[in-house]
Amino acid sequence: MTAIYPGSFDPMTCGHLDIIKRAAKFSDRLIVAVLNNAAKTPLFTVEERMGMLREAMEAEGLKNAEVDSFSGLLVDYARSRDVYLLIRGLRAVTDFEYEFQLALTNRMLDPGLETLFISTSTEYLFIASSVVREIAQAGGDISKMAPDYVCERLRRKFNEHI
Amino acid sequence: MTAIYPGSFDPMTCGHLDIIKRAAKFSDRLIVAVLNNAAKTPLFTVEERMGMLREAMEAEGLKNAEVDSFSGLLVDYARSRDVYLLIRGLRAVTDFEYEFQLALTNRMLDPGLETLFISTSTEYLFIASSVVREIAQAGGDISKMAPDYVCERLRRKFNEHI
Amino acid sequence: MTAIYPGSFDPMTCGHLDIIKRAAKFSDRLIVAVLNNAAKTPLFTVEERMGMLREAMEAEGLKNAEVDSFSGLLVDYARSRDVYLLIRGLRAVTDFEYEFQLALTNRMLDPGLETLFISTSTEYLFIASSVVREIAQAGGDISKMAPDYVCERLRRKFNEHI
Amino acid sequence: MTAIYPGSFDPMTCGHLDIIKRAAKFSDRLIVAVLNNAAKTPLFTVEERMGMLREAMEAEGLKNAEVDSFSGLLVDYARSRDVYLLIRGLRAVTDFEYEFQLALTNRMLDPGLETLFISTSTEYLFIASSVVREIAQAGGDISKMAPDYVCERLRRKFNEHI
Amino acid sequence: MTAIYPGSFDPMTCGHLDIIKRAAKFSDRLIVAVLNNAAKTPLFTVEERMGMLREAMEAEGLKNAEVDSFSGLLVDYARSRDVYLLIRGLRAVTDFEYEFQLALTNRMLDPGLETLFISTSTEYLFIASSVVREIAQAGGDISKMAPDYVCERLRRKFNEHI
Amino acid sequence: MTAIYPGSFDPMTCGHLDIIKRAAKFSDRLIVAVLNNAAKTPLFTVEERMGMLREAMEAEGLKNAEVDSFSGLLVDYARSRDVYLLIRGLRAVTDFEYEFQLALTNRMLDPGLETLFISTSTEYLFIASSVVREIAQAGGDISKMAPDYVCERLRRKFNEHI
Repeated sequence: MTAIYPGSFDPMTCGHLDIIKRAAKFSDRLIVAVLNNAAKTPLFTVEERMGMLREAMEAEGLKNAEVDSFSGLLVDYARSRDVYLLIRGLRAVTDFEYEFQLALTNRMLDPGLETLFISTSTEYLFIASSVVREIAQAGGDISKMAPDYVCERLRRKFNEHI
Repeated sequence: MTAIYPGSFDPMTCGHLDIIKRAAKFSDRLIVAVLNNAAKTPLFTVEERMGMLREAMEAEGLKNAEVDSFSGLLVDYARSRDVYLLIRGLRAVTDFEYEFQLALTNRMLDPGLETLFISTSTEYLFIASSVVREIAQAGGDISKMAPDYVCERLRRKFNEHI
Repeated sequence: MTAIYPGSFDPMTCGHLDIIKRAAKFSDRLIVAVLNNAAKTPLFTVEERMGMLREAMEAEGLKNAEVDSFSGLLVDYARSRDVYLLIRGLRAVTDFEYEFQLALTNRMLDPGLETLFISTSTEYLFIASSVVREIAQAGGDISKMAPDYVCERLRRKFNEHI
Repeated sequence: MTAIYPGSFDPMTCGHLDIIKRAAKFSDRLIVAVLNNAAKTPLFTVEERMGMLREAMEAEGLKNAEVDSFSGLLVDYARSRDVYLLIRGLRAVTDFEYEFQLALTNRMLDPGLETLFISTSTEYLFIASSVVREIAQAGGDISKMAPDYVCERLRRKFNEHI
Repeated sequence: MTAIYPGSFDPMTCGHLDIIKRAAKFSDRLIVAVLNNAAKTPLFTVEERMGMLREAMEAEGLKNAEVDSFSGLLVDYARSRDVYLLIRGLRAVTDFEYEFQLALTNRMLDPGLETLFISTSTEYLFIASSVVREIAQAGGDISKMAPDYVCERLRRKFNEHI
Repeated sequence: MTAIYPGSFDPMTCGHLDIIKRAAKFSDRLIVAVLNNAAKTPLFTVEERMGMLREAMEAEGLKNAEVDSFSGLLVDYARSRDVYLLIRGLRAVTDFEYEFQLALTNRMLDPGLETLFISTSTEYLFIASSVVREIAQAGGDISKMAPDYVCERLRRKFNEHI
């Protein structure tokens, strides 16, 4: 069974890494797919985001997980990779509604595509990339929210901006 | 009983049409009112949006439904039309909270104004104009989400933009 | 337009009365239908519940509202009365989900049946019959939660039980 | 990948069958496990419930799905079968919270156990066994909510009771 | 500032203890009040529940917290103790709605009574007494969900029952 | 006990004032702290917002409440004031999730910091600054949503803009 775990990962958090490790355990192969969204201005480039994910997977020794990027519709990307399983992490209720809408929309676009939801570990339940970015920018301590190399990159990124 | 069904309809979806047909059945007269919101940049002009709604109503043979537009506060528009019933479609829970707040705010502004909520058909529960626009722009298949003439207009609109 | 407002009304609260008054305003005729649920042991008999509702309607001068009772499926009752509109009051989110399920189930049983939801006034948003019963039984002050004659009946009911 | 889809299935609905078919597609082997809950009085015996599930799977030609039953804790059953993936269907938000609590509790009891959530098809989003039982008992039409043989068994069950 | 933390505590969990410790930190005096609800059959008697709470507070060295019990309405108990602050722990969304209704009902019964909500630690977010009882009865491991002496009492309680 | 009630207050509403009055009753000292968020363009300057808050407190005779402003992370501001209690008002469910995430994030940043949630009065449950601004701009009646001097300032502000 091959599965795709799509997301913005701008940047990846401990919550993302938790989902990747869980999904890699029950999948034969896991593709972590970074969304290249032209409409948004991300903090990190697609290459930087892919680099941090690769670093995380190596550090965790995940042999069956790889990193890729995509633009356009997720259903088109999934078809191009010939993969019909998506993985999404669930945190809170507002999350759930949005994810549910996405999953049902994707199923409408391609009835063969299935979305599997996994719950994040309780200690990462309330960590979002946007919050991590905001705290890092304000100089707050994000060491419990993201892996070390991500924290380091965030620090450098916000120093550049000065 | 005359009722107003207000919205942005940018563009109208199968979900909107479902609500219009249901509301036209139990109302004596239904006014579908397109919001002309100066603060937002819509994809379609008010005239285009009204045109698609009119086309839909004719195709469905809805004789007691008409299309209008308004700007400013909905309560002021309702008073100007001497109508005291509003219709809103409900989909999911996040929807519900927002709609609830709107209804109670409108009731505070005019205690005589009543909002009636109807639930969309299950097959349209997760269709929003924003999602339809996004999928159309990415070249995805929206034929199950919006009427044919809306799909056609979306296709042309996004070709214009190229 | 005739509509049915079904419920247990065991007993009716200020929240119920609020919905009845609102619905009577936009309906030509309103049937308040007391559910005779054999599976539950109500505090008040169907006759007592109907009596309190009638008293409330007279006190409010509602000429186009009447009281009835039913057992079995609501869709069968609605068909027997040749009425295709149901009214339900909405309070909070958990309410909403339950009501949504009911409405979609009833629509599945009879596609011609429509459910209209109205939001209760903010001051009655959190009043439920079960809470009113519980507080009355413990001797608490329910004068802001139910009309006077209902409060009086509750007091007598709990004195009988002693 | 082997997975367990646990539940009461009292009786199975079209919603359950939808989840079984989806899960059987991406699993190597699927165990549909009927909970034998001593604390509750089910309408159908465990054997009857297993029989209906087997009939459904045969009718659908699902070769990699089997039916089993269990009592006690789900984590103990999963360990006894040496399976570490659970499948649960998600419908609405209240569902989600309950399922989330279950998944996190099971993970606390056995950190190696993972729960995958799948969303039901929109047409079955609001179908629950309890609702199907209630409507069948009142003589309502459940033909769109459960497979034919389940409808037939429900009819007979409620005739027995008379 | 004196505050009351009311509940059933049947039995107390790590989640309850977490709230007690947090509340004792910002209150001058904290009264943990065990509800003696005649309508329900608890697993532990009020005395047993109070005993476990006392044991927990001593083990934690909480000098400004005491244990009491009450029956009837919480507002009457609060008045009898001349305390006007209630503490409640919040976990998930369904919790929140119920707690909100309780708080607004209590405020209606006594406008001088204020309810303060605190969020439980993430690791205890999904632990409820009912779940702990159920797992203990089935012989599962509850050592991360309740203090040692509570686990021990639960073990003995379910052995008695055999 | 000293507590901080942080917010944007752009502008303060009757809902904010309700929370301030409640919190001032059970706190020894209350600091209402206006967030100076460089990333957003507020309608009123920090000084204007502080001025309206001070006017409100004087009008209400709140002697133990003061107004301050802060920028950067709330946890840093709280530490700089040596205060470890935050007050937040809760309205609806979507609110709750956002507030919960904030509270757990702040607790992660500083485990000694506690957030107390209070529910707003039912009549102010659905009033948000953004809604008040929008209605005022459209010339609607906001007299039940904000104190007089706030209404007056809003009127002048939107006249300036013309």
